[in-house]
Amino acid sequence: MALHFTSEQRLDDGVLERRFTLGEIPGILWTPASVSAPVPLILLGLPPLGLHKMYPRLATRARHAAADGFAAATIELPGSGERPRQAPFEQARADMRRAMQAGEPVSDEIIDALILPLVDQAVPEWQATLDALLPLPEIGGPVGYSGGVISIGIRLALLDPRIVAANLFAGSFVPRTMFEEARQITIPLHVLLQWDDEGNDRQAALDLFDAFGSKEKSLHAHMGGHTGVPQSAGDAAAQFFTRHLM
Amino acid sequence: MALHFTSEQRLDDGVLERRFTLGEIPGILWTPASVSAPVPLILLGLPPLGLHKMYPRLATRARHAAADGFAAATIELPGSGERPRQAPFEQARADMRRAMQAGEPVSDEIIDALILPLVDQAVPEWQATLDALLPLPEIGGPVGYSGGVISIGIRLALLDPRIVAANLFAGSFVPRTMFEEARQITIPLHVLLQWDDEGNDRQAALDLFDAFGSKEKSLHAHMGGHTGVPQSAGDAAAQFFTRHLM
Repeated sequence: MALHFTSEQRLDDGVLERRFTLGEIPGILWTPASVSAPVPLILLGLPPLGLHKMYPRLATRARHAAADGFAAATIELPGSGERPRQAPFEQARADMRRAMQAGEPVSDEIIDALILPLVDQAVPEWQATLDALLPLPEIGGPVGYSGGVISIGIRLALLDPRIVAANLFAGSFVPRTMFEEARQITIPLHVLLQWDDEGNDRQAALDLFDAFGSKEKSLHAHMGGHTGVPQSAGDAAAQFFTRHLM
Repeated sequence: MALHFTSEQRLDDGVLERRFTLGEIPGILWTPASVSAPVPLILLGLPPLGLHKMYPRLATRARHAAADGFAAATIELPGSGERPRQAPFEQARADMRRAMQAGEPVSDEIIDALILPLVDQAVPEWQATLDALLPLPEIGGPVGYSGGVISIGIRLALLDPRIVAANLFAGSFVPRTMFEEARQITIPLHVLLQWDDEGNDRQAALDLFDAFGSKEKSLHAHMGGHTGVPQSAGDAAAQFFTRHLM
């Protein structure tokens, strides 16, 4: 897929933000204010809420990464934001909302329908993003993956040897078959869990952490609900990447 | 109880290490290489293995604390090290060892017999240590408590308003009655858990973390067994104290 930069701006801290398209997929690349040698890259995962809606939080994470000497990049997920809606995703999301509003557990069937096709489509797109960005002279590698839909992070951490460390946000709905992939992961993992997130099955998150095959893995649980990850947790995740990518 | 300094030495990084006795209790105080204004104090808890045996690990923690601008202090636990043996503790420890060697669960009765009298005796001693050390001109407060027997940390965090933040090592045997005290704690807590510690009941540790009443609490689980806490975990605990004591 062809990479085209479509716009370019310097943020107030000097970070260079470039919008791009990769084929039909919109994305953003951030690089540090000054780059004297090729820098490692952190892929910023996102939930399927659209790049536009997530931009403020992504940009904050990207600026922190840039301040630590990393490039950061993200792409729109399939069926999200400005990308064409996909009927099966829409159906699965509607089913999930209906179950949650009715106070019912979200069934394995709904979770599988929601997540597995998303992982199957998104993972090759993130890999294509690496194919396109790593040849840029200012980007060297290695690569870390951070946040977003945890099942996408699991599949990427397992499949793509360019990714050497991952920071995963526990709490998305995880298909049971992803546990088998989790067991085969060997790269260092830093896992964040919001302890009192009502939309999150805490026990499932703990089971998933236990399943990860990595010898070096750590779980960091904080209070504050789904979007209340404290600043100190972001700092710790940044230190994790500095230890493993620098 | 009277405080007497019994020896004094400068460590190679300039940290001042002073041995003391408080009544009959041996202890150690470490202060930063240079102190221009009174510094906060971190109480370094320890397991009932004796100050002599624990010295290398305690000194390492104390030097890190001093490098961050803290004083650090520890005292020998009742019935440990050079202090007189106490028959009930010895009996409870023997019962615990016997149960563990036989592969049996350690009963609530054994845990209560082992821990509750230790907490009842140790907590007033740590409070007396604060009474004795806080008037020193180089020590100002506030005070943090770090590590050691978690039930002692729970009682101190609940009872002593001079302690404003605590770093607790989950995994000691915790009497069920301590859960009620845990629920009443309100100070910020940083809780470490060794995920694959065979001598540790992981579910009990997670239940205890859940029980803590503090609005600001975080759980940090790492691999590596009972003594394998990684350097990064120590760094994160140090940052926790810097946020809350500085």
